[in-house]
Amino acid sequence: MKQFMDKDFCLTSETAKTLFHDYASKMPIIDYHCHLSPKEIWEDRRFNNITEVWLGGDHYKWRLMRANGVDEKYITGDAPDHDKFIKYAETLEKCIGNPVHQWSHLELKTYFGYEKALNSGTAEEVWKLCNEKLADPAFSARGIMKMSNVKLVCTTDDPVDSLEYHEKIKADESFDIQVLPAWRPDRIVNIEKPDFADYVNKLAKAADTEIVCIKCVKRALKTRLDFFAAHGCKLADHGIDYVPYVPCTEAEASEIFKKAYAGGEVTAEEAAKYKTHMLLFFGAEYAQRNWAMQLHYGCKRNNNGYMFRQLGPDTGYDCILNGAPGPQLADFLNALATDNTLPRTIIYSLDPNDNAVIETIMGCFQNSDAVGKLQHGSAWWFNDHKDGMEAQMKSLANEGILGNFIGMLTDSRSFLSYPRHEYFRRIMCNLIADFVENGEYPWDEKILGRMVQDISYNNAVRYFGF
Amino acid sequence: MKQFMDKDFCLTSETAKTLFHDYASKMPIIDYHCHLSPKEIWEDRRFNNITEVWLGGDHYKWRLMRANGVDEKYITGDAPDHDKFIKYAETLEKCIGNPVHQWSHLELKTYFGYEKALNSGTAEEVWKLCNEKLADPAFSARGIMKMSNVKLVCTTDDPVDSLEYHEKIKADESFDIQVLPAWRPDRIVNIEKPDFADYVNKLAKAADTEIVCIKCVKRALKTRLDFFAAHGCKLADHGIDYVPYVPCTEAEASEIFKKAYAGGEVTAEEAAKYKTHMLLFFGAEYAQRNWAMQLHYGCKRNNNGYMFRQLGPDTGYDCILNGAPGPQLADFLNALATDNTLPRTIIYSLDPNDNAVIETIMGCFQNSDAVGKLQHGSAWWFNDHKDGMEAQMKSLANEGILGNFIGMLTDSRSFLSYPRHEYFRRIMCNLIADFVENGEYPWDEKILGRMVQDISYNNAVRYFGF
Amino acid sequence: MKQFMDKDFCLTSETAKTLFHDYASKMPIIDYHCHLSPKEIWEDRRFNNITEVWLGGDHYKWRLMRANGVDEKYITGDAPDHDKFIKYAETLEKCIGNPVHQWSHLELKTYFGYEKALNSGTAEEVWKLCNEKLADPAFSARGIMKMSNVKLVCTTDDPVDSLEYHEKIKADESFDIQVLPAWRPDRIVNIEKPDFADYVNKLAKAADTEIVCIKCVKRALKTRLDFFAAHGCKLADHGIDYVPYVPCTEAEASEIFKKAYAGGEVTAEEAAKYKTHMLLFFGAEYAQRNWAMQLHYGCKRNNNGYMFRQLGPDTGYDCILNGAPGPQLADFLNALATDNTLPRTIIYSLDPNDNAVIETIMGCFQNSDAVGKLQHGSAWWFNDHKDGMEAQMKSLANEGILGNFIGMLTDSRSFLSYPRHEYFRRIMCNLIADFVENGEYPWDEKILGRMVQDISYNNAVRYFGF
Repeated sequence: MKQFMDKDFCLTSETAKTLFHDYASKMPIIDYHCHLSPKEIWEDRRFNNITEVWLGGDHYKWRLMRANGVDEKYITGDAPDHDKFIKYAETLEKCIGNPVHQWSHLELKTYFGYEKALNSGTAEEVWKLCNEKLADPAFSARGIMKMSNVKLVCTTDDPVDSLEYHEKIKADESFDIQVLPAWRPDRIVNIEKPDFADYVNKLAKAADTEIVCIKCVKRALKTRLDFFAAHGCKLADHGIDYVPYVPCTEAEASEIFKKAYAGGEVTAEEAAKYKTHMLLFFGAEYAQRNWAMQLHYGCKRNNNGYMFRQLGPDTGYDCILNGAPGPQLADFLNALATDNTLPRTIIYSLDPNDNAVIETIMGCFQNSDAVGKLQHGSAWWFNDHKDGMEAQMKSLANEGILGNFIGMLTDSRSFLSYPRHEYFRRIMCNLIADFVENGEYPWDEKILGRMVQDISYNNAVRYFGF
Repeated sequence: MKQFMDKDFCLTSETAKTLFHDYASKMPIIDYHCHLSPKEIWEDRRFNNITEVWLGGDHYKWRLMRANGVDEKYITGDAPDHDKFIKYAETLEKCIGNPVHQWSHLELKTYFGYEKALNSGTAEEVWKLCNEKLADPAFSARGIMKMSNVKLVCTTDDPVDSLEYHEKIKADESFDIQVLPAWRPDRIVNIEKPDFADYVNKLAKAADTEIVCIKCVKRALKTRLDFFAAHGCKLADHGIDYVPYVPCTEAEASEIFKKAYAGGEVTAEEAAKYKTHMLLFFGAEYAQRNWAMQLHYGCKRNNNGYMFRQLGPDTGYDCILNGAPGPQLADFLNALATDNTLPRTIIYSLDPNDNAVIETIMGCFQNSDAVGKLQHGSAWWFNDHKDGMEAQMKSLANEGILGNFIGMLTDSRSFLSYPRHEYFRRIMCNLIADFVENGEYPWDEKILGRMVQDISYNNAVRYFGF
Repeated sequence: MKQFMDKDFCLTSETAKTLFHDYASKMPIIDYHCHLSPKEIWEDRRFNNITEVWLGGDHYKWRLMRANGVDEKYITGDAPDHDKFIKYAETLEKCIGNPVHQWSHLELKTYFGYEKALNSGTAEEVWKLCNEKLADPAFSARGIMKMSNVKLVCTTDDPVDSLEYHEKIKADESFDIQVLPAWRPDRIVNIEKPDFADYVNKLAKAADTEIVCIKCVKRALKTRLDFFAAHGCKLADHGIDYVPYVPCTEAEASEIFKKAYAGGEVTAEEAAKYKTHMLLFFGAEYAQRNWAMQLHYGCKRNNNGYMFRQLGPDTGYDCILNGAPGPQLADFLNALATDNTLPRTIIYSLDPNDNAVIETIMGCFQNSDAVGKLQHGSAWWFNDHKDGMEAQMKSLANEGILGNFIGMLTDSRSFLSYPRHEYFRRIMCNLIADFVENGEYPWDEKILGRMVQDISYNNAVRYFGF
């Protein structure tokens, strides 16, 4: 029996231990997709207690508590922080095999030096220990990032964002971790949403222009793209139901835009056409600016209307949207490739059944523009656990080149989430070691050590041009 | 090499052995979903030979024999029972890795004390041994249930059923295993079936009422729901292609009902509307009566028309129906949640690709109404094997709380199927032990022993309120 | 740590080693589905260097090179063969876990006696070694087939093919490996393709008849079917998007045919109807001739339009087509079964998510016509790796009878691809041994030795009637 989450956690062979401890663990962290608040980084936020930092906005944990029948007042409600923490500890005790169980314990160990299990019996001692540590100024937002060996993070930002906090952070010479913006223009793509017209007005204002047609939309977006580029932006991100491909002329797109902007209702087909048109526009703009494009799809959001009205979005009521049409993804990428406007692209689906189809579509668009121009993003959200990461990496190894993988990102709102990079690296090193242990790849420490360093760090630096 | 199906079958670590032998194996059995005949329990049916009890109605075994090229006369035809058994033994020899191979041997060991392999070489001795044992009155239907440590079973019953055998069994003080009805109203939901109108007449008669509109249908069903509740019914079950969500007013549903009742043909859209309406009605009724609702979907039945005309349904000609729309499942549950009429719900899909989507949809509807209000049902039918059970439990562990799982059911027509609970418990204990062995969860005998007892038995008692 | 690809590669237990070395490895090879050129076999083609034989037409390797950012001139372009090989070696070094890495090394070991790893450091020595060996006349096309212990191959041939090389090979008494044609009539099924009418004219000419209606098409095809049968053809193959079932009368099919033949555009629905009609026609013809029917579906081809215009088809730009409708496959087979015209059928989907649905559909059509009448084809193309083969065999074991599996085929254009049979046999023996090692099946060397020999060779001989 292995000791609970000891130094060789997830490492089942000597080869794995060597690769992780001597190579992967020493690399710094690039977190190229996260949801940290630049404002909180700038302000160097402090945390009053472990509930604040752990349960303040973490819908992963909220879902588990609800699944344990915990009353909402201990989750998002007004119960005292101490009581919320106790309820969380009681829940965690039953969560054998859940990644949140493992993340929680990695965080307790890494940041608070606590090596035992958090459960109903130890909750009080953990509460006390963590709060003492959090009282130390070293446990500020920036402090945690520094002690995590982070070199660079990319936040997730709306095109209308002023990026003021990015500017301030950059100007602050006392803080040498790069905090770059990333472009997330979902609101101008989601034409069917009720606040679409409002958003268009915000965009017009941000770009200091008028918007009356699709050409104006594009002009405004280009202004903002340039603004983001000037702030060091290197990648964009799209959150979409699925990658659409319903060809649409600019004239058609403009009519659909005008209809929606005037408050009219667009049909599903019209929305798909407009989205196709806009995503193709964005792809070409990214290619021109040498940005990478992330496509996140397969999520159905806000499924519990009753709770949505109380808590709003991102509160733990999202699920996998299955049935994404692979052919449209292939045709979408082909449309960009045909025009020679396909940027480096990273594809993530929330549906784990899409792994193989994504690999094989990617294989149709690789070329000498970049090493691993098309990337299959690391196991995302509901798949961000050992089984999901192994499935994604095995799929990538089977159909493509694992050695060119750009690796892990946290996608997280929490300053304590960096041990997920450690977790990923352990699993990745163990998988690579397994190939060697099984006689499928020869033991060559130089090649393999470099490979795990590349996947941990170097590939991302090279790929994004950081 | 482990010995063939010895006492440590499926248990690959000392931790697993401790959890199974000291905890899980000692718990009684609740079989909350099966297809046993209450009449046969009441009459305490006896079996003339092993073919009768094994091959009499078991389409799992029939399919294997057909896949081995066995002539139908040895399967459902008029060949002597002895010869059928020999053909089954010859088939089984080739079925390495098939759950029926393992179930058959668990049953031979548990009930007949036979520890060797059944194959073409041993078929005669097994035939003789089993038939001798079956001649013992202890091997009656009730006798087998008693020797299996069964506490309670729920049968599967039509709303028009008189439940007379349930009454008789309950009244019989010599038999202390509870046999409760479970409500399965598929025939009033399947509006597109040719016998729909006939069934409506049967329902009217059973409820002693007239049916001319949808309101009458509901009134009749409520009468029968109350009747079932008075007989101890605690859960319902729906067998559907997929969980539909096509909103439909009561007025629309009534028009569609009238059309079908008058012998008219309903369109696919009309059927989906009517089904949505009725399933929402049922959900609310279950919530009011504090019943649990089971949803079984993803099955396409009676695919071989030629054989269907000869043998009828449930004879081994069903398959997985892929492509169930996850979004409709989410929207259906949301419609109930919005009205605060969502009962405790157990979801099963026959398509193993649906595991993750089910987990993530469930997570959107958990709340403090119950611990684990939404449940992902144990691996069903074509997935009821080690790989399928492990996949279902890993998926549950990754996205939810394995410790709250209500565990196994047989879904079986056979009195000899209880070793499937043992099989499940072995696999479950081994999986939980693996988390511990891998250092992902600390060894804590008290917590883990209770966890496997809960999943084996206590969670179901609590969840259903037995 | 196991040695890199040594004699016990993929064999993790003594049981596995015994089954492979003493039983499976000794069986000859039947390769019942490949894309070798009969002309090259007849001419006994020689190879100038390892690039010619390895990179000449192998789109698996091309895809990997592109994924490594290699310029197209080193892939399909005019760079010197030596330089292409170096680029391939550099790429391969990063391909840990990829089947092409393992195939390449199996081929180096089997044919060239090279036991080390091919990478950037060893590329030159491997280049030299292989080219020396290839200069030996024993390394001709026929020579390689002989040294691989091949007994029989089936090529893939168009109905209009003259089969002249098959005739010549058969007449050549110096070469005793059987080279049979296999019938692949995709072009007469793909009614939506621009060259359909041209192809109809070719078919008319080949059958020496006139074609003006669907009856004429069928008459011409029957002529060609008989011609193929006279040349020893035993099986047919269809490459389709998915198996369609949209019922269609002969009169409708004829109208659709006439429209397309006259250059008109057929709708998606018309194409599905015509295809259904033709596939049912073919099924019945195969049944009558006692041929087996292969159905390959789930592939979307030629996804990169830019590269397609430069390189044409089969150049590494295909992907998985997900979303194949299982119900249509079931209904299609049922239509044949109803008419008692369902031939032995082998089903392959490129989407690994289809494994379970295929098994369960197959189970609905098994009968005493043959042992394992319906077969789930070995893991195909993008799934032709250890994970994919294990998934296919486990799925088959779970739902059907692994012992009746007809086993491996290469589907390859390369004369050096026979070690894929060895690779398959190792994985198959190891899987079967695992069942024994885990105590799920008893150790019985006679039964198990025969089982792995059957899956390696005997089942295919029996199934196809070779």
